[in-house]
Amino acid sequence: MSCVARVPVQPMATNAPRTIVAGATGFTGALAAHLLWRHPDFELVAITGRSEVGRELRDVYPRYRVPLSFQELDVESLDGIDAAVVAYPHAAAAPTVAALRERGIRVVDLSADFRLSSLASYERWYGEHPRPELMHEAVYGLTELHRERIAGAALVANPGCYPTASLLALAPLARAGLIADVVIDAKQGISGAGRVFDETTHLSMAGENIVPYKVAGHRHTPEIEEQLNALASPSCAEADAPAPELKVQFQAHLVPLDQGEMASCYVTTTRPVVTEELRVIYLEAYHDEPFVELLLDGPPGVLEVRETNYCRVFAAADEHTGKVIAFGAIDNLWKGTSSQAVQNLNLMFGYPETRGLL
Amino acid sequence: MSCVARVPVQPMATNAPRTIVAGATGFTGALAAHLLWRHPDFELVAITGRSEVGRELRDVYPRYRVPLSFQELDVESLDGIDAAVVAYPHAAAAPTVAALRERGIRVVDLSADFRLSSLASYERWYGEHPRPELMHEAVYGLTELHRERIAGAALVANPGCYPTASLLALAPLARAGLIADVVIDAKQGISGAGRVFDETTHLSMAGENIVPYKVAGHRHTPEIEEQLNALASPSCAEADAPAPELKVQFQAHLVPLDQGEMASCYVTTTRPVVTEELRVIYLEAYHDEPFVELLLDGPPGVLEVRETNYCRVFAAADEHTGKVIAFGAIDNLWKGTSSQAVQNLNLMFGYPETRGLL
Amino acid sequence: MSCVARVPVQPMATNAPRTIVAGATGFTGALAAHLLWRHPDFELVAITGRSEVGRELRDVYPRYRVPLSFQELDVESLDGIDAAVVAYPHAAAAPTVAALRERGIRVVDLSADFRLSSLASYERWYGEHPRPELMHEAVYGLTELHRERIAGAALVANPGCYPTASLLALAPLARAGLIADVVIDAKQGISGAGRVFDETTHLSMAGENIVPYKVAGHRHTPEIEEQLNALASPSCAEADAPAPELKVQFQAHLVPLDQGEMASCYVTTTRPVVTEELRVIYLEAYHDEPFVELLLDGPPGVLEVRETNYCRVFAAADEHTGKVIAFGAIDNLWKGTSSQAVQNLNLMFGYPETRGLL
Amino acid sequence: MSCVARVPVQPMATNAPRTIVAGATGFTGALAAHLLWRHPDFELVAITGRSEVGRELRDVYPRYRVPLSFQELDVESLDGIDAAVVAYPHAAAAPTVAALRERGIRVVDLSADFRLSSLASYERWYGEHPRPELMHEAVYGLTELHRERIAGAALVANPGCYPTASLLALAPLARAGLIADVVIDAKQGISGAGRVFDETTHLSMAGENIVPYKVAGHRHTPEIEEQLNALASPSCAEADAPAPELKVQFQAHLVPLDQGEMASCYVTTTRPVVTEELRVIYLEAYHDEPFVELLLDGPPGVLEVRETNYCRVFAAADEHTGKVIAFGAIDNLWKGTSSQAVQNLNLMFGYPETRGLL
Repeated sequence: MSCVARVPVQPMATNAPRTIVAGATGFTGALAAHLLWRHPDFELVAITGRSEVGRELRDVYPRYRVPLSFQELDVESLDGIDAAVVAYPHAAAAPTVAALRERGIRVVDLSADFRLSSLASYERWYGEHPRPELMHEAVYGLTELHRERIAGAALVANPGCYPTASLLALAPLARAGLIADVVIDAKQGISGAGRVFDETTHLSMAGENIVPYKVAGHRHTPEIEEQLNALASPSCAEADAPAPELKVQFQAHLVPLDQGEMASCYVTTTRPVVTEELRVIYLEAYHDEPFVELLLDGPPGVLEVRETNYCRVFAAADEHTGKVIAFGAIDNLWKGTSSQAVQNLNLMFGYPETRGLL
Repeated sequence: MSCVARVPVQPMATNAPRTIVAGATGFTGALAAHLLWRHPDFELVAITGRSEVGRELRDVYPRYRVPLSFQELDVESLDGIDAAVVAYPHAAAAPTVAALRERGIRVVDLSADFRLSSLASYERWYGEHPRPELMHEAVYGLTELHRERIAGAALVANPGCYPTASLLALAPLARAGLIADVVIDAKQGISGAGRVFDETTHLSMAGENIVPYKVAGHRHTPEIEEQLNALASPSCAEADAPAPELKVQFQAHLVPLDQGEMASCYVTTTRPVVTEELRVIYLEAYHDEPFVELLLDGPPGVLEVRETNYCRVFAAADEHTGKVIAFGAIDNLWKGTSSQAVQNLNLMFGYPETRGLL
Repeated sequence: MSCVARVPVQPMATNAPRTIVAGATGFTGALAAHLLWRHPDFELVAITGRSEVGRELRDVYPRYRVPLSFQELDVESLDGIDAAVVAYPHAAAAPTVAALRERGIRVVDLSADFRLSSLASYERWYGEHPRPELMHEAVYGLTELHRERIAGAALVANPGCYPTASLLALAPLARAGLIADVVIDAKQGISGAGRVFDETTHLSMAGENIVPYKVAGHRHTPEIEEQLNALASPSCAEADAPAPELKVQFQAHLVPLDQGEMASCYVTTTRPVVTEELRVIYLEAYHDEPFVELLLDGPPGVLEVRETNYCRVFAAADEHTGKVIAFGAIDNLWKGTSSQAVQNLNLMFGYPETRGLL
Repeated sequence: MSCVARVPVQPMATNAPRTIVAGATGFTGALAAHLLWRHPDFELVAITGRSEVGRELRDVYPRYRVPLSFQELDVESLDGIDAAVVAYPHAAAAPTVAALRERGIRVVDLSADFRLSSLASYERWYGEHPRPELMHEAVYGLTELHRERIAGAALVANPGCYPTASLLALAPLARAGLIADVVIDAKQGISGAGRVFDETTHLSMAGENIVPYKVAGHRHTPEIEEQLNALASPSCAEADAPAPELKVQFQAHLVPLDQGEMASCYVTTTRPVVTEELRVIYLEAYHDEPFVELLLDGPPGVLEVRETNYCRVFAAADEHTGKVIAFGAIDNLWKGTSSQAVQNLNLMFGYPETRGLL
């Protein structure tokens, strides 16, 4: 113990679902643990992470005052656990998710393993799938798009952070059948690189830099494409869809801040659109969303949503080019990952969607 | 209105004290409003600020989702108000504080006007005092030092941010009579310069810089000195003390981050001290404090307390020089100012000290 | 005088052109003065700037150790001046440029006033032109595109920073007739906002932020369009062209660093292109350029060109979408503005293009 | 080769000393190579670094456009080499330095191995010395203090960055016998942690942080003490001095920028001093120094010396406490290490001290 501090009491309802976070050593798992620890309706009972076994989370991440010690995950010995957040890399996640599901534990998986409905697409972008039989059980966890199905789900595939920002910016256009072509240029803070220690994250290299990465081949591309195509033709959303018609040009960049992500989307529309029509479309989509803030006068900055579950959206038509520009701003670790996982857990267990997140 | 968003409901108890923030256009007043808006036991009923009359706080500070509009302050028309946070510059604050007190409103004043008990000292460092007759009524609001008196106070002089970090680092030594001489070197993020737009705050000038300021003459000096001398000789703490014996060498620096403050204190002791004795002294002082985290293995970083009311403290004896080094790390806007104001309001109104702050 | 320092001797050839910088109080004018002061073949004889008259440049910008004092510009009294860099806002620049030209002084104008060849386009984006009669005299100063004409020019319209990065990324494609449609998403450090003191540049607001600005209407758009269209159909490059066929979707963002700019360009091509063909096209364009570094393995970061006149370029074909992605990375204050001005001055006065810039 | 670029020609005098940098993979060695490559009077013929053998320096450090490939160091095979910069960790450096010296190569050693004249002191702070017999040959390379001896030296021990900033701030006081006690609080950018990849340097942990490190035990302490004591009593400067009388309280902090270092020094004087006397003392010391800029009106910021060999100094007396406060601001990688190494090489080979550094 390196710090003498009064342990903050975990506020906890009786009969609160007993929850674990598997893989809480990384940025997103640790944040999920932090959010669940202070959540009034979930009991965080264990965190796992092989590389830090025995250390308390609050020693590894001093900002997250969670006085639990990391354990090794032993699914067989888990007893009386109701829910799990799995924060493993893709391919590593699926077997653990399967084991947890076999014990009846409801899972929010932060990996990419169950985000795509098309196995062919998964195999093309990620390689062999360890548990393809579970793919159809999973619900894609972009809350605003699939709220009802998430509420009844036992396995939620939490979206990637880029798809979250991009899809919230684009969904109203996609639903209206307005997207003929789209370029998404995304910028993200260094926390998006994770707890990785190399040239990418060293302040002396990353600090006064702007760096594009994964040119022509970011794995969030098929996830965005599948959702946009499903929105455009809702009937095939749940089937193993045919080759998607819309192809998305997606490009990611690292910029020198910690948390924050901006998706700038440039849409060639299927027919001419003016800003007034956009306003109607977006208002209809988002006026009653608790975590989408629709801007009317100008684009958002990511600082406005830092350490929140909000996504700020703005869209405008460019009279000069005829294109539509739409922006989605989120905190990549929060709405982009961990707080959206809690938003989904709230729905899965019948709590108000905003519980523990305001 | 530039943003369509569901107004978050202000959680509010019945009979919650009705509260205003005067001067909520600056960083600290705006944060106080944000904290009070989301506080379960205070009702924020109005915010004032001449330069932004008519705009909503959430438009001026998008991070603070407070849907109240700025008004001009008209003390005469205030009715049924129980408490006020005053966030004015020194000298401007005192008359407003006096007017509020005349209407029976309990006040936490963020300015320097009532922090010093010695009028002579105030006049030397700040000039003429607009309302010296109120000085004796005020209680110095460093919660951990004056908890009992704050609980009964009608006027609390909230400490400067530098004194907060410095005094929490040094109080146990001062109380033990161990400080013969002290140098305090403090570093602070750019938010400490406030909502001021000049070379000091422009990212291109401040961003890759380290800048000392107010060399040999920072006005937080007498505040620290008065408190340290009072701790060393408790009997004269409340009287208009004689010229303080201990003089503090205090130096402030701006470093390129937003929120965060570190006070590094170098103490020549009155007698030899070893680290083990320090540990006993500091544990006794802080083991039961809800917002002081005493580190045992090494010094804190300010990121560990960002956007919290915590102060992290570490002290060690240097065998080589015989001096004691003590560090206090806070968020200058939170524990350094606005969340400590709420901590004090909690005490003044009989709520648990941590309410709304965890 | 606030600093005692040995004045660095200005290295100077005999018969060096006598040069002034008009408007050296802003970031780009100050940097131009700094570069000319240390240039072996130009003599910097005066700097002007009304707001700082009497102060030395090295006091206003301590990094630029130029011991000249700001004067008011009095064109009539200028005697024996060979060259001027004008760093005024658009519309304000043209009359001064005209007056300087009347005295036979060769000018590099950093403003937008003479960048467009189409008066109609200027009027649509900027309003009335103060000196349209000079437009045909001016040569567009993107050195790599117009080297020969710059060498013989008396008035060079230095490009905008965004057009510099964008056009160097796109010129080889434009010349090959490959651009059917293009989206340019540009990111720039805060120095791009200039010596402006407001929310845009305050470290507390800009520091952990990503902010799009001037949505659907940035004035660098017509400049990029005109040059791309000219490259695609060289014959009309010098005429007052008809409405350009290619329309550019351009969007700018501020990200939290000081100097650096990245143009990410997404090109729908007129016919299928593979990466190997791109390599041939770009190598042909840039293999012998002293200040263009063509990357082959992956995209550049802006830190790689910080405080240099280099532009780093990378292009790749995306097999998935069929689009071409091209990146141009520069220092917005250097190659984006002031060092390119010096590069042009070198050409205009017959010096090697790299003089004073390596 | 990842980049097609015209290799900038190394400007080189005939008979330029043939130079190598051993250990050019780290930040300071790489910068030394960069500075020597562009130096008009030294020929950089080789760079070594085991971890990057075969890669070009400009690929590892794209900002440093040095087209030499890393080799393994093989001292035996070195032929016709006149000078070497050794950038190894302490203890590892000494044997290499010895081998180079045996071949008659003049060495600037960036490590701590030859900075102390007292073997006892070295052993207490660093452990066993690998080549104590060479200690007396070495000259301490703080140029401004030991210019004459450096000019005749074959082995120069380049100072630590903290001692450089601290000693330049304090030397005039030490020489005047004015220092009775001193606290040095130093702040440095993250490049000071070197090319190390861990929590210390990850932008997400370091970026919005202020972190003290090596509390009560930084190894630059004895270096500063030895020099200050030597300045105070010049006669024993060259002897293996008795236990130094003055003990220095030194504390280092990392703050979130790349390059830059500030030493804030708090001096209890041996007798009362006023600011006017300080000015005389400091002017006498520094008025003719090419790389020390003495400020008269207020303290420096580190941005003012970024990527230069300058040190900016400011000193003031505090009337309130009677102490003297002195600041030294440098770029830790430049004057703090690598450009000072070049400054020393200039002296060792008879070139003007400023050559290649303005």
